[in-house]
Amino acid sequence: MTRLLPILFLLTAGLARADEGMWTFNNFPSDLVKARYGFAPSQEWLTKVRLSSARIAGGCSASFVSPTGLVMTNHHCVRDCVQQLSTPQRDFIVKGFYATTAPQERACPGMEVNKLTEITDVTDAMTKATQGKEGAAFRDAQRAEIARLEKECATAPDVRCDVVTLYQGGMYNLYKYQRFQDVRLVFAPEEAIAFFGGDPDNFEFPRYDYDVSFVRVYQDGKPAKMDNWLRWSSKGAQPGELTFVAGHPGGTSRLLTGEQLRYQRDYALPERLFQLAQLRGLLDEFQQRGPEFTRISNSLKFGVENAYKAMVGRREALVDRDFFAKKLDEEQKLRDWVKADPERQKRYGQAWDNIARATDTLRTMRIRLRLLEQGAGTGSDLFGYARMLARSADERSKPNELRLEEFAEARKPELEQQLFSPAPVYPKLEEALLTFYLTKLREQLGPDEPVVKQVLGKQSPQALARKLLSGTRLASPQVRRQLYQGGPEALRASKDPMLELIRTLDGEARAIRKRYEEEVESVIDKNGELIARARFEAYGTSIYPDATFTLRLSFGQVKGYPDEGKTVEPFTRLAGLYERATGEDPFRLPPSWLQAKPRLDLQTPFNFVSSNDIIGGNSGSPIFNKDAEIVGIVFDGNIQSLGGEYGFDESVNRTVSVHSQGILEGLRKVYNARRLLEELGQGGGG
Amino acid sequence: MTRLLPILFLLTAGLARADEGMWTFNNFPSDLVKARYGFAPSQEWLTKVRLSSARIAGGCSASFVSPTGLVMTNHHCVRDCVQQLSTPQRDFIVKGFYATTAPQERACPGMEVNKLTEITDVTDAMTKATQGKEGAAFRDAQRAEIARLEKECATAPDVRCDVVTLYQGGMYNLYKYQRFQDVRLVFAPEEAIAFFGGDPDNFEFPRYDYDVSFVRVYQDGKPAKMDNWLRWSSKGAQPGELTFVAGHPGGTSRLLTGEQLRYQRDYALPERLFQLAQLRGLLDEFQQRGPEFTRISNSLKFGVENAYKAMVGRREALVDRDFFAKKLDEEQKLRDWVKADPERQKRYGQAWDNIARATDTLRTMRIRLRLLEQGAGTGSDLFGYARMLARSADERSKPNELRLEEFAEARKPELEQQLFSPAPVYPKLEEALLTFYLTKLREQLGPDEPVVKQVLGKQSPQALARKLLSGTRLASPQVRRQLYQGGPEALRASKDPMLELIRTLDGEARAIRKRYEEEVESVIDKNGELIARARFEAYGTSIYPDATFTLRLSFGQVKGYPDEGKTVEPFTRLAGLYERATGEDPFRLPPSWLQAKPRLDLQTPFNFVSSNDIIGGNSGSPIFNKDAEIVGIVFDGNIQSLGGEYGFDESVNRTVSVHSQGILEGLRKVYNARRLLEELGQGGGG
Repeated sequence: MTRLLPILFLLTAGLARADEGMWTFNNFPSDLVKARYGFAPSQEWLTKVRLSSARIAGGCSASFVSPTGLVMTNHHCVRDCVQQLSTPQRDFIVKGFYATTAPQERACPGMEVNKLTEITDVTDAMTKATQGKEGAAFRDAQRAEIARLEKECATAPDVRCDVVTLYQGGMYNLYKYQRFQDVRLVFAPEEAIAFFGGDPDNFEFPRYDYDVSFVRVYQDGKPAKMDNWLRWSSKGAQPGELTFVAGHPGGTSRLLTGEQLRYQRDYALPERLFQLAQLRGLLDEFQQRGPEFTRISNSLKFGVENAYKAMVGRREALVDRDFFAKKLDEEQKLRDWVKADPERQKRYGQAWDNIARATDTLRTMRIRLRLLEQGAGTGSDLFGYARMLARSADERSKPNELRLEEFAEARKPELEQQLFSPAPVYPKLEEALLTFYLTKLREQLGPDEPVVKQVLGKQSPQALARKLLSGTRLASPQVRRQLYQGGPEALRASKDPMLELIRTLDGEARAIRKRYEEEVESVIDKNGELIARARFEAYGTSIYPDATFTLRLSFGQVKGYPDEGKTVEPFTRLAGLYERATGEDPFRLPPSWLQAKPRLDLQTPFNFVSSNDIIGGNSGSPIFNKDAEIVGIVFDGNIQSLGGEYGFDESVNRTVSVHSQGILEGLRKVYNARRLLEELGQGGGG
Repeated sequence: MTRLLPILFLLTAGLARADEGMWTFNNFPSDLVKARYGFAPSQEWLTKVRLSSARIAGGCSASFVSPTGLVMTNHHCVRDCVQQLSTPQRDFIVKGFYATTAPQERACPGMEVNKLTEITDVTDAMTKATQGKEGAAFRDAQRAEIARLEKECATAPDVRCDVVTLYQGGMYNLYKYQRFQDVRLVFAPEEAIAFFGGDPDNFEFPRYDYDVSFVRVYQDGKPAKMDNWLRWSSKGAQPGELTFVAGHPGGTSRLLTGEQLRYQRDYALPERLFQLAQLRGLLDEFQQRGPEFTRISNSLKFGVENAYKAMVGRREALVDRDFFAKKLDEEQKLRDWVKADPERQKRYGQAWDNIARATDTLRTMRIRLRLLEQGAGTGSDLFGYARMLARSADERSKPNELRLEEFAEARKPELEQQLFSPAPVYPKLEEALLTFYLTKLREQLGPDEPVVKQVLGKQSPQALARKLLSGTRLASPQVRRQLYQGGPEALRASKDPMLELIRTLDGEARAIRKRYEEEVESVIDKNGELIARARFEAYGTSIYPDATFTLRLSFGQVKGYPDEGKTVEPFTRLAGLYERATGEDPFRLPPSWLQAKPRLDLQTPFNFVSSNDIIGGNSGSPIFNKDAEIVGIVFDGNIQSLGGEYGFDESVNRTVSVHSQGILEGLRKVYNARRLLEELGQGGGG
């Protein structure tokens, strides 16, 4: 009976079928691709693709596209940088940016690019370290082993090492990256064309966006040399063509238990949406105060709107009765299979209930955890800086393996890059965000909660926010650097009011984080490992792990999809862009595109969809053919793909990309970007 | 077996037990009160109480407290009036209002007070009218019969008649009211004391609010004479005392089916909360633009915050696994009982599945329905006026029984009072709300939806909102009156841009409303009637109907409750108010209360809780003892009571009231309100 079951399971239990799967590079199903599309990626091909792929540490994907460190990604992945380099007088978000000479390339504050150079399986070491342990002991052992492995691996500041948890703990891999922290902006179009259609068109198709930008990674002040990079296809994506996407999907929840999904459905997602909705309203009105208010808050507004729409889509997948029932049914089948054998039942049988209990615990602590730790500060930069500084005073004096993970030795380069970032801090926006945070703190913990009383005293949230802002000096990167370099004593002696705020909060914040790590996270990790092993036992390794913002490869093909009885065609063309333009935001074309219209071939493909399995974090991924030639750049998924968080539906889930021919047409005839085109090997065109 | 079941059901199936129940006056369980508290309200007592109770048509409760038309209610029930009478120079919200002489009493724009004079059972007429009908035919017959009954009953403009659906259609009653449309403000304290603690303290206890106001109803320009009114208890509420609340709970959902509750949990509540959250953020920032922006938007902000917190509480009740399972279990028991008898199964067996299908249909149309009809305009006054006018052009020429219900002959007085209200319209707030609405319309129906294209053309939502506001003349009550009185032709000829907007929307709006009424509402009504009859058959009439904003009586006692391991005492005292004050909003006391402190008896009870079963709409209800003497005024429920939407838990659900002694102490020593005290029969005190 046991031997039959895996075949039964193939039909229902989250196993890869069709074009589904965000596969790791060390477990890619070349045979499956061969069976479906007649092409089996070789090891060499996979290595080349891996070394041509890039990650932008803030949450995007990218690719190397020249031997001299040129990186292609989305406009919305460098939007922060473009805004940070802008001033009220010179707004590159509005006007676009193009370095016509090398010296004009400008450093992006706080940006980091990673190239994955090596993957090592460390499952044995991790499992051994935590064996027989539970709760706090499990968590401490896990953290210590991660700190040890990462430190041992990170032999230089430009080597980044992350222990990656795969299959909810069924496997641990050590990912070694080359780290680039000198990243400079080369080309960014005007946002009006990069994000044409704005929020109304986001996650929709047909679509007309030129969401592409270029940066360059430097080493020792010079463009970094690359041995591997992607070349361009001569024609770009063709109907029905096999396409691959190499990128960094941020996270999926396809292997969560039913109770974890219920928690997502009933608590995590709706409460995050309440917060995002309120922030949306706040930002819309904030922008009414004047154009400068708009300029300084547009990046945040984009992030909030984008997350809002994504979470709405996810929630709708989970409240779908049939979809949820199917997830529960898949789980039940695995549990039944475990139960059918007493040995298996003994090994794995309790795991689901243990996770359910941990999820119940999480429910009782979620509000405190969110307000004091995970969501504290609601995105205020100053709050973030202050907490990094205040905590570094305590953490840096501890042994590496006892520190909060973000202060581990191996993470130092990104910590310091963030902390010393010259990105501007906007006081008016900070005031709005801090007021919002302090108001929520009082609203949700209640005015009688001791820590709320300590923080606010007799002040209103807004009065306190204003006082903090008028007193703090942390907006200056020099001040932050001095404080940090002054070490624990200088930090503890500082009377900066933002640091004092953090000190008031930090006892409770650390306490709730500790409880969460010990009573929730460690239980979920430990029992997640057990479920993962049961799953391996039942299905073998022909499954892919949930996304974890690590490099994955997905395959699919260029094709449309059915929507409300109609068929959506896979391509849009430049002609459609001009038809859609109204002259009013967000359907207003920038002057460059209006002027270029007579020169353009309006039949050039502009955007297209394919059945690749992707999710947030894949933004900026190259999409390429079997010859590893670029046919476009991924920038979005359609609205149906949002449920991909929990499961992939090949019939309607689609990746949305800018077509390579559309990119080149724009570079040639709108931007006349000769230096860039030459570097891309496209100098002869146009 | 059949005879046993009702007793089984008594334990689990939503039958009244303990202090639960919002009872109708014609089915009050005097025996149950007698058994629990040794006092059985007589018919005479019930009549007196009913005739001393009042409804404020906008959504509040109140009581008559003098023979000359004095009405007591909450400050937050007259807040709109107080704001409408204010100007930037003279802000009664901040300063309070007190008419020291009769001529100083000022008319509240658009306010209507109702006194319930008669209840008639019209179940037979209603059932007969719809017998054998379904869908559109059912809906038309139902509407025609309601229009007929109400018109026949409403013999004069000051008689209001509403057909009330009870027990989800198990019973129909005709409620006949005396209608007062000349309502004048007598006394309102400063909002800072009426709503001390603001949103953070809302729905919380211990509590310190002076949420009381007085208005007066006039007839023919003179104070209306009353034969029945409530007198004051000499001591006010005592610990353990039996208390009654007569008021107008707005609505509960205790008898909904499991699928209806699921729809509430997964769609209706979260999506309403997303909208409210965004409006909250918008209003918070709107108020940053200046004090006048704050003044004109505070009423709306209060409403939004209050609804938000209430919905959060409701949603939390429904996502509670055990609570939801219990509701499903209760339903299953009734369904099993129906199934046990083939005759019953034939009569009632399909009702639940039919409602489930209608709920599925509702899910598919909900977004259109909300944007085009039920939530269209997002609270913009001008949108509301324009729609009333535009639709009246079509509806008034139809026979009474074919009109949309709000245009039926019997509803004319409230329609006209609303339409001609002299309440100020605030253009800046209108612009924000219309922009919000038009943005949501485009966001949620999509920019390619024909009606969205027709409305917006090439304009942005904000540009259109500004154009509408600069062109419309509907802010003037005179203009609205002229247009209305000009009749259909004048209305259709008008080029007012707000009217044109409505005309563009109205085809689609009426279409979705029609589909909703025929495919959802009528199915739910029809099958709800069946379930109600099954329930009567199983339990008899010892159950109470869901709340419907009609007069109900609940009983309970003054007592505290357990909360997180502690016992919350039932009383707060004036001393506690001064301890809680910080000097900063929303804990800032107005000058009058700061100055009065030395004169006050700080041991006077201020607020208290009791186990009466109430819900939103009960605000302003009198709370009184068995001698029908006022012991306080209801203004809130505790946070635990919010789940009362779906079920009552006597152990923790509490009504929050201002204590009568606290009210009098304030009138005497803070406001020196002699004329008012004398009218209340309290002239000798202080």
